[in-house]
Amino acid sequence: MATNMYDAAYALQKAITENPDFIALKQSYANVQADPQAKQLFDQFRAVQMELQQKMMQGQQITEADNAKAQQVVALVQQNPKIAQLMQQEQRMNMLIGDLNKIILKPLEELYGPLAQ
Amino acid sequence: MATNMYDAAYALQKAITENPDFIALKQSYANVQADPQAKQLFDQFRAVQMELQQKMMQGQQITEADNAKAQQVVALVQQNPKIAQLMQQEQRMNMLIGDLNKIILKPLEELYGPLAQ
Ligand SMILES: [Ca+2]
Ligand SMILES: [Ca+2]
Repeated sequence: MATNMYDAAYALQKAITENPDFIALKQSYANVQADPQAKQLFDQFRAVQMELQQKMMQGQQITEADNAKAQQVVALVQQNPKIAQLMQQEQRMNMLIGDLNKIILKPLEELYGPLAQ
Repeated sequence: MATNMYDAAYALQKAITENPDFIALKQSYANVQADPQAKQLFDQFRAVQMELQQKMMQGQQITEADNAKAQQVVALVQQNPKIAQLMQQEQRMNMLIGDLNKIILKPLEELYGPLAQ
């Protein structure tokens, strides 16, 4: 009997929660949340990020002022070791999720492959 | 011992290839590919789709002529029962993949949930 797709997805969900990189990311996030200064800075960084994303999604122009504000927050954030560590682990996790996605979507990619010819 | 994330992803990949909806999609795709008229129409439809996507990604204006061309191809495509079936099964598969993604990404969503507060 073939494994149910949903069962396999839940097994992967569980494997992610037990993955050392995910656990490290969770810990780094908790470290930031537990430090009021780091938390405030990180929340500010996320708010600026989200504002820029929304502008881009709505097709609005990103102004010089937007860019300057973003660069200022990024500079502050990079100087905070707890946030720097969190961001490094986020990048690592994003890479892993990208790898997982490639594996999972391969059957669909192979199906449509000949179309591109 | 926790299941390795990659092993779990490969197990999900296998479950997708064995899923009845995926097998039906594959069969519908083969039916279109085996029918020269349907294949030509479908290739044309995909080419128009890709052209529009590229224009949007590059921030180019979608013209009235682009829209008219797209609508014309969609109308032709919908009249072809083999393609209509393929497109219905693509929609179903996209929905399933969306469900799987929600399950897989839940640990990350839960991690960042408090951020949105
Ligand atoms: Ca083709
Ligand atoms: Ca928060």
